[in-house]
Amino acid sequence: MTESPELYINEEVVRRNIEKMSRKALHYGMQLRPHFKTHQCAEVASWFGDHHISRCAVSSLKMAWYFARHGWKDILIAFPLIPAQAEEYNRLAQQVSLTLFLSDPNSLRFFSMIRQPVKVMVEIDTGHHRTGIGVWEEEKIWQVVQHLQQNQFIEFGGFAVHAGETYHCSGESAVGEALARNLQHIKKLKARYPGACVSYGDTPSLSLGADFEGIDEARPGNFVFYDLMQLNLGACAPEEIALHLLCPVVASYPQRKQVVIHGGAVHLSKEYLSINGGEPVYGHVVAANHAYAENMPAGIKETMEVIALSQEHGIIRATHGQAQQILPGQSLPVIPVHSCLAASQFNYYREMKTRRIIPKMSL
Amino acid sequence: MTESPELYINEEVVRRNIEKMSRKALHYGMQLRPHFKTHQCAEVASWFGDHHISRCAVSSLKMAWYFARHGWKDILIAFPLIPAQAEEYNRLAQQVSLTLFLSDPNSLRFFSMIRQPVKVMVEIDTGHHRTGIGVWEEEKIWQVVQHLQQNQFIEFGGFAVHAGETYHCSGESAVGEALARNLQHIKKLKARYPGACVSYGDTPSLSLGADFEGIDEARPGNFVFYDLMQLNLGACAPEEIALHLLCPVVASYPQRKQVVIHGGAVHLSKEYLSINGGEPVYGHVVAANHAYAENMPAGIKETMEVIALSQEHGIIRATHGQAQQILPGQSLPVIPVHSCLAASQFNYYREMKTRRIIPKMSL
Repeated sequence: MTESPELYINEEVVRRNIEKMSRKALHYGMQLRPHFKTHQCAEVASWFGDHHISRCAVSSLKMAWYFARHGWKDILIAFPLIPAQAEEYNRLAQQVSLTLFLSDPNSLRFFSMIRQPVKVMVEIDTGHHRTGIGVWEEEKIWQVVQHLQQNQFIEFGGFAVHAGETYHCSGESAVGEALARNLQHIKKLKARYPGACVSYGDTPSLSLGADFEGIDEARPGNFVFYDLMQLNLGACAPEEIALHLLCPVVASYPQRKQVVIHGGAVHLSKEYLSINGGEPVYGHVVAANHAYAENMPAGIKETMEVIALSQEHGIIRATHGQAQQILPGQSLPVIPVHSCLAASQFNYYREMKTRRIIPKMSL
Repeated sequence: MTESPELYINEEVVRRNIEKMSRKALHYGMQLRPHFKTHQCAEVASWFGDHHISRCAVSSLKMAWYFARHGWKDILIAFPLIPAQAEEYNRLAQQVSLTLFLSDPNSLRFFSMIRQPVKVMVEIDTGHHRTGIGVWEEEKIWQVVQHLQQNQFIEFGGFAVHAGETYHCSGESAVGEALARNLQHIKKLKARYPGACVSYGDTPSLSLGADFEGIDEARPGNFVFYDLMQLNLGACAPEEIALHLLCPVVASYPQRKQVVIHGGAVHLSKEYLSINGGEPVYGHVVAANHAYAENMPAGIKETMEVIALSQEHGIIRATHGQAQQILPGQSLPVIPVHSCLAASQFNYYREMKTRRIIPKMSL
């Protein structure tokens, strides 16, 4: 019996995902700089060591310090620089090879506060429209690169692209088209800046792509665990999903064909999928799926959907028969829609087979 | 300048919200049992002491222990009992007057594991359909009450209703209608169980209602801070919102009329409002609103909407002029859609006027 929702990872599957992505990067001549925002865990990070990966990306200064303390020496903060953190960047750059993002030319003036050698990558927006200088703003990019090269403490580190638009793609071929469009942009960029490194993010492109010409560094994060969103995109197979929450059943209502778990918005996050424009789904309870099956009440063979969340409650749509079989005292394995957001809600993982605790960064 | 997103509360406003709700409960002859899941903070809880409030509700065992350690002696875990926690309930009940929920008759058998005096409230579903025995299942309720009364360690504590349907109401009058319907159910319930206590939850009903006949105990939570969702419902005035996040601006893009902050799904949560079926809104940047204004770049007078979130980024829709004025190095105050979920992402508050740190329960 489970006392409260816990986060499980399958070490074997995580290691397999890491190996597959490492081989793929090697095959296509890209350096792998895994994004550690997904797992935020020193031990999971250490599993990359088997593949001689020594660089990483993080999405906050706090995460950068965490991995620096755990021995990582080449860290990219893949998030627009935060002016108020300038002194912290100086402190961190004394200990590690630090790379920062320049995402808005208005931030250039804050580099006058940098007194330690850092690398700076110019973040380029190729169409995702989150952050970065538009790839079409050729003059602006040129000025920024010139400006960076005049600063004695700064080494221009090339260009970074996050193809976040792939998360909203309708499937494999749409991801491929987005990647192809971006490769065209990158080709032109490299023609203007020969020798400049191009770092490219996002798990769907890196999982599904078969052409990465012009990309020097691959920066995927989610692939260590994958999740429902990636499965829905076609970026992973069900057996590559390495993370689930194990949630206590707290009530069953066969008449309304629902089961209620302790597992709410503060555990799964309110990220949802709306497949074919249908009602939101916040997670899947999976039975038929390999390793999870052992956590399922006997006889439950069909996937069930988490259809509503409040702060601590999760509502699962079941059949009348399932709701009669699934009772308080049992627990259900739930695959989240977005493993990065679910993982960030917990202080530790449990390893699925050994049940040992693997600490991670906490809030 | 702000280094990373921080959570601010206005002590004066929180104290005023507490006073108003305490007076209202007193006026209508209800005991106030505030739900502490919203703030999860011993100091905020202590502000209820001025109004002689000594009972509280929480939504997890962990929260119950936290408030027990901070001197609270009458604690309701307003969440279906979790069978695997039976031994923990025994331990906690040695220290405090503990009340549990019975939300599914299938959980009755687990009370054989209870060896300390506890109160048990039967959770009644009056139409919200989250948890509880249907108010229409008269026979089932009768059997459960009989069963509880046979257990030597258990005192039947009455009935609990959570009118969560009000969060989806379209406005003040719809909230009033939901409350009126539930009061009819409660009237019948009290006729069958004379003298049984009825505890009633949800901030919209308690904020807007003007008739609470039959309700003995009021169990609202969110009213300490309120938020955009409550404002949208009409449950609070703008000046009653006591919480915001202060987020560093990290990039501005006047051409696409957007500003980007450090403040994403792991800070605001992905809870959104869709007003009149429009695009999702994850938070409001408010300028014109009293105390927040001091955190706004000078000259920004109009509210702006947070229209997209990724893990750490928030995208704000601005005018061209706003995006030209709001630059990296500045910070923006953001009111979240759901303050309970935003607060649960942080380990501490800052008090808005004094900037002192107020610790809260962490993950």
